[in-house]
Amino acid sequence: MDDKGVTAVLLISCPDQRGVVAAVSDFIYRNDGNIIHADQHTDQEKRIFLQRVEWELDGFHIPRSEIAGAFRPLGERFGMAWDLRFSDYVPRMAIFVSKMDHCLYDLLWRQRTGEFKAEIPLVISNHPDLQPIAESLGVEYHCYPMTPETKADQERRIIEKLEEQRVDLVVLARYMQILTPELVRRYPNRMINIHHSFLPAFAGARPYHKAYERGVKIIGATAHYVTQELDQGPIIEQDVARVSHRDSVADLIRKGRDLEKIVLARAVNLHLRNGVLVYGNKTVVFE
Amino acid sequence: MDDKGVTAVLLISCPDQRGVVAAVSDFIYRNDGNIIHADQHTDQEKRIFLQRVEWELDGFHIPRSEIAGAFRPLGERFGMAWDLRFSDYVPRMAIFVSKMDHCLYDLLWRQRTGEFKAEIPLVISNHPDLQPIAESLGVEYHCYPMTPETKADQERRIIEKLEEQRVDLVVLARYMQILTPELVRRYPNRMINIHHSFLPAFAGARPYHKAYERGVKIIGATAHYVTQELDQGPIIEQDVARVSHRDSVADLIRKGRDLEKIVLARAVNLHLRNGVLVYGNKTVVFE
Amino acid sequence: MDDKGVTAVLLISCPDQRGVVAAVSDFIYRNDGNIIHADQHTDQEKRIFLQRVEWELDGFHIPRSEIAGAFRPLGERFGMAWDLRFSDYVPRMAIFVSKMDHCLYDLLWRQRTGEFKAEIPLVISNHPDLQPIAESLGVEYHCYPMTPETKADQERRIIEKLEEQRVDLVVLARYMQILTPELVRRYPNRMINIHHSFLPAFAGARPYHKAYERGVKIIGATAHYVTQELDQGPIIEQDVARVSHRDSVADLIRKGRDLEKIVLARAVNLHLRNGVLVYGNKTVVFE
Amino acid sequence: MDDKGVTAVLLISCPDQRGVVAAVSDFIYRNDGNIIHADQHTDQEKRIFLQRVEWELDGFHIPRSEIAGAFRPLGERFGMAWDLRFSDYVPRMAIFVSKMDHCLYDLLWRQRTGEFKAEIPLVISNHPDLQPIAESLGVEYHCYPMTPETKADQERRIIEKLEEQRVDLVVLARYMQILTPELVRRYPNRMINIHHSFLPAFAGARPYHKAYERGVKIIGATAHYVTQELDQGPIIEQDVARVSHRDSVADLIRKGRDLEKIVLARAVNLHLRNGVLVYGNKTVVFE
Repeated sequence: MDDKGVTAVLLISCPDQRGVVAAVSDFIYRNDGNIIHADQHTDQEKRIFLQRVEWELDGFHIPRSEIAGAFRPLGERFGMAWDLRFSDYVPRMAIFVSKMDHCLYDLLWRQRTGEFKAEIPLVISNHPDLQPIAESLGVEYHCYPMTPETKADQERRIIEKLEEQRVDLVVLARYMQILTPELVRRYPNRMINIHHSFLPAFAGARPYHKAYERGVKIIGATAHYVTQELDQGPIIEQDVARVSHRDSVADLIRKGRDLEKIVLARAVNLHLRNGVLVYGNKTVVFE
Repeated sequence: MDDKGVTAVLLISCPDQRGVVAAVSDFIYRNDGNIIHADQHTDQEKRIFLQRVEWELDGFHIPRSEIAGAFRPLGERFGMAWDLRFSDYVPRMAIFVSKMDHCLYDLLWRQRTGEFKAEIPLVISNHPDLQPIAESLGVEYHCYPMTPETKADQERRIIEKLEEQRVDLVVLARYMQILTPELVRRYPNRMINIHHSFLPAFAGARPYHKAYERGVKIIGATAHYVTQELDQGPIIEQDVARVSHRDSVADLIRKGRDLEKIVLARAVNLHLRNGVLVYGNKTVVFE
Repeated sequence: MDDKGVTAVLLISCPDQRGVVAAVSDFIYRNDGNIIHADQHTDQEKRIFLQRVEWELDGFHIPRSEIAGAFRPLGERFGMAWDLRFSDYVPRMAIFVSKMDHCLYDLLWRQRTGEFKAEIPLVISNHPDLQPIAESLGVEYHCYPMTPETKADQERRIIEKLEEQRVDLVVLARYMQILTPELVRRYPNRMINIHHSFLPAFAGARPYHKAYERGVKIIGATAHYVTQELDQGPIIEQDVARVSHRDSVADLIRKGRDLEKIVLARAVNLHLRNGVLVYGNKTVVFE
Repeated sequence: MDDKGVTAVLLISCPDQRGVVAAVSDFIYRNDGNIIHADQHTDQEKRIFLQRVEWELDGFHIPRSEIAGAFRPLGERFGMAWDLRFSDYVPRMAIFVSKMDHCLYDLLWRQRTGEFKAEIPLVISNHPDLQPIAESLGVEYHCYPMTPETKADQERRIIEKLEEQRVDLVVLARYMQILTPELVRRYPNRMINIHHSFLPAFAGARPYHKAYERGVKIIGATAHYVTQELDQGPIIEQDVARVSHRDSVADLIRKGRDLEKIVLARAVNLHLRNGVLVYGNKTVVFE
């Protein structure tokens, strides 16, 4: 592998203590690495230290296959949870959809134009409707219709397919099925959902109808990692749009589509750039 | 009273039916009124028609004291709820506070500089802390300390004071007491509260702490009319601000103060300009 | 033609004077029309009255082909400029592009999903690059390469093509050619451009580079009608996004793409819903 | 001086090169400092490295009076421009005003409530109007009326007054006089102005009138450091608000006041927290 232009990223969390920043930057500098971004945050309340540091591999004295091993003692000394990534690794992303196409279109377009650094080997759905879109853009489409009776079996088949395709990231792009714990468990902090409200307002079903009923003046969308509790996972990104009494439910849905696309795309982008660190039920977003 | 530069405003709601707009504008035109603003909205789902129409009194053939009587038959024909107001009437506004001063300062400043067309004859509080601020700006301050035992009595005294001062609008500017139904009942659609969250998210106590715990990326504030159900009244205005993992609860509170001030001021301004029409549990805001 | 569910829209501007609103609503009511939206605005400084009124054709006593004739005397009496439109007319829209595809994709997607009530019979470009996109979605693509020498001729051919296709609305979706006065003149208030800055800041070429150089903290996009003066036409819609010192020019371009898509789509939508009225060099947007 | 709870902040800029981060954090760690925030940025185009690092003085082995001397060799080795500050130093801020009071009120209120860590020993004006406001809050008010003939003399007296009061930061809170180069020169990156437009749009006089004429859909405000070129200095913060055709110039001015207050307050706060680093004509804002 060529290291020209490639960077390494370390995502670190550990109990707050003296000397962590110095030890990490010293590790990189001693081996002639050039740090191009470093950002840290300390949660003062929970006394947790969180850091993202990125340096150029070119000229770094430790071969990339040995960096993890060389860093391990340091990680152990400070009690770190850490993650090492390389910028030339291209994650493989599966998109789950049902019948709505706006997020699917948007994600596929961003991947094709290079905005997302990812491969999209497959789209998974519980309905056949969006097959032509995926296939017109050269992406496999796998349909797993669900009934309460078949759900467990179908999800097992989905898991097999995801593993066969070595999927790193699952994106629920308005997938209208609640996942089984079995599937959720396999993608911790690697499964992103877009919820069409400003969480925690209007969790659950039909948020635009609820927003209309409540007479809110602003609607929102929320991208979050999926956990076992519905709509309760760590929030990655949110955004809002102004509405008025003139907007019907159909108008909220229309305006919301643009919000959903953009909020989901930002969250996926942050994840793909190794910019999101989860701790507790919250995220640190290094921009 | 001089009618030069004065306008009349009609706020109307009724079942949707043919001819309402024509009948109202014909009523004004026939009497040589010049309409300077007219805005309407039909709630298509509930089939309710809502209108705000404003015209110049100068040159209008009906004296202002007789307009209501002259309009009544038309209102009855269409089954209208309607409200007639004159732009030279200066509403009297009471501000309720506890210990936080930011909204109080802001409201008093806007009134003094003429941004609010209102008199502020008194400030009411359950604590003495903000007395110097009110009095330095020449506004009476009445303090009604509350205990569970004295609350009912104290609120009765507050009601007397409000009536003695002929208060038209009550503004709860971070007043940290839940009002009795008795007091709420007296100011239907004339009592505005600022809640320091993006309702319906984080209703109730300590919303900034809850927002911090949940890890939201955006915080909000909501101005609404007060009803018997806490934080459930018709929303007049909302706004939001972006936050990040770097923001502590104290930072959310600091950023929230600016939101609270601005959202409350906008809602009060819309109310004072006769721009808000309540129907069901929602508002129509004519801007 | 069936009138079921069809509405008529009148867009009116005239010198401000008494009785206009009453006369217009009376015209509709006398003929048993049911007004479902009416909005008006008076430019107090220029003393211009502007109105948009929409009513149901079903049950209206004047056949749609005779409404214009019936309204004409009233328009003449008040010195109106007016425009009559029917909601079942589907405008024909041509999209001009160069090499960037994001706005093209977005517009075609919105038309296909029914968000835009329009036909898109053709895409016009000075480059062949986007032909596959247009054709994969079943839209004709016409390429007119330009050199300074051929420009006048090519634009004449473009005009012929537009007329042959009876185009109502031209949308410049990041078309990187300055149009000749000849072409602009043919689509007054019917040609929309998206400019990738917050006009009037950074008019002209390379606005993202200029924004980066200036160190702004917010970037924008502006949709406007095209006039003979470059980037000076009436503004329909604008929006902004926050940026920071971390954003390179490439990041501004990436963030800007989302802004451009959304601002252009909103402007096209407002135009297609007959919601934009131009007077002087400004727009009134009836939402 | 007690070091309990006190932090030191280093603001650094230098040519981008290997080892800077490691050297700086090693300097702090070797002396047993605990870094609580560290943020850096590299301007890839200009190859400039910029850093803000903050650590606890408590337990740090170098006495605060000797830190600068101890750091100097390291600064020289990397060709740094650097600035060392201590969190318990309370900067002294002078506010310049003319006749508008909204920013003055807002700044004084934020200082009194502890939101600004600063002393405000004096307000300077070319008009007597706001003297009562300053004095009611216990702040000296010095009035220097200006005519073209007296301007140079008056500004010399202002400079004397600022030096006598050992002012660290000058805030132009809608001060309607162009300063002489003499005065500007004395407060490089220590004089903040609020301009009532979204710069670079509408630089110079009467931006709200120009915005109204141009028919923009969004207005803005910009806080920037003052340089010799009017409205051209490094931008610290900007924000915007949506407007419509219904807004008169007076409405833009009213809405703009809230923008001005908040944008100016944020910029002053960022400056006081040692969060702004200027390089070239741009700022890095460490939040």
